[in-house]
Formats: sequence, C-alpha cells, structure tokens
Amino acid sequence: MRGVILFAHGSRDPRWREPIDAVARRMGELDTGVPVGCAYLELMSPDLRTATQALVQRGVASIRIVPLFLGVGRHAREDLPRLVEELRAAHPGIAFSVTAAVGEEPEVIDLLAGLALRPGITSKP
Amino acid sequence: MRGVILFAHGSRDPRWREPIDAVARRMGELDTGVPVGCAYLELMSPDLRTATQALVQRGVASIRIVPLFLGVGRHAREDLPRLVEELRAAHPGIAFSVTAAVGEEPEVIDLLAGLALRPGITSKP
Repeated sequence: MRGVILFAHGSRDPRWREPIDAVARRMGELDTGVPVGCAYLELMSPDLRTATQALVQRGVASIRIVPLFLGVGRHAREDLPRLVEELRAAHPGIAFSVTAAVGEEPEVIDLLAGLALRPGITSKP
Repeated sequence: MRGVILFAHGSRDPRWREPIDAVARRMGELDTGVPVGCAYLELMSPDLRTATQALVQRGVASIRIVPLFLGVGRHAREDLPRLVEELRAAHPGIAFSVTAAVGEEPEVIDLLAGLALRPGITSKP
C-alpha cells in the first residue's frame, strides 16, 4: 500500500491550511484506498516526521511526498530534500519519493493562467 | 482595456518566481490583449503599487488582482485588502477587483488532488 503526504509551508493563521485540507479530502473522494496525510514545514503541525510515522503505522510500504508550493525556492529545493534524507534514514523499509512542486506542473500553470483571465472568476469586493 | 496582476508572496530566492512568470507567459499565449503584471508582497520586486503604475501607464481602465496563494491566511485576508485600499485611493479612476486566492478555487483543489494521486507525476530522486 502506498501513502501520500501533502507537504505545505504552514502559517500562524489556523485557517491557512483549509485549502490543503480540501485537497486531502478530495483525494479521499477520488481514491479511498490511498492513505493521505498533510505535513507542514513550519508554524503548523504535524511536521513531516510525524505525518510519516502516522502513515507507517497504517502499514504503507511507500510514501509519495507532494510539495504544495507554487513558488519554488529554498523550501522546496533545500529544506525538503534534507527532511526526506532524515526520513529515509529513520524508515529504511519505506520507499520515499518526492514529486515536483505543484507550481512546476504545466497543468497547474495552465489552469492558473486560465483562471486569471476568466471573466466569471469569483470576485471579492 | 482591463489588466491583470498576479500577486504572490515573494522570496529571497530569485528562482522562486519562475512558476509565477510561467503563469504570466501562459496568459499572454491565451489572450494577447490583456496586459499582465506580476507583483510581490515582500522580498521581491515589483511591489503591487509599482506593478499597478505600470499597467496604468499602459492605459488600462480596470485591474483584476489574482492572489497566487495556495494557503489562505493573513497575507491574503489582511495584507492584500489593505494594499488594495491604498491603490484605490491612489488611482480613483481605475476599477480594481480582487479574486479569490487560487487555493480557494474548486478547480485548483481538484487538479492538485488528481496530480497527487497520479502514478505518472514527475518524480524527483
């Protein structure tokens, strides 16, 4: 069984994570057989280590980490690989993989460009 | 003529903005008649005021601001509305609108959930 961790930055604002939670919920609707966890780099819990332990306890053999970052900087290119090395050392029996940050996915770029141009996009006063 | 500003957080890492620039480029491919600018809350330039001035000089009558934030916290809910109030005061002839943050768009949630589950997503070592 494979699990997925959505990895995001985190914030002091408790409502910041609502879209992250919404992605996790939507994944559960799309495929109920894949355990999903959320993890945060800072300011929010759980951290990546704790989220990994939770999936390992659910019996996953592999974990894919998906960085929910639009901009790709130090957090995605330096902090995350370092954290993943720690996970691999702590869980040698688990196969970890890390996807590109979502901001690097052409489909995401395309959707955001379309949304930004769309006349009917939800507008706030 | 209406213009669009993509508003993102910013970073000390100059490569952080590459996905933001990619969204702006894609918008230019989808609709060459809409002037597009990028603006940053902090750590990168231009700021929102400078990006607005550039669009005003290009003759736009309205500006839509699209927050490229996945998580929605203080930056999207407090900092941005305050900045937009300043813009409205400085440019009373321009109609400003602010869309929902992209992390609040159901289509974005749906795409991210699908990407996170997809077996073939780009994997990094």
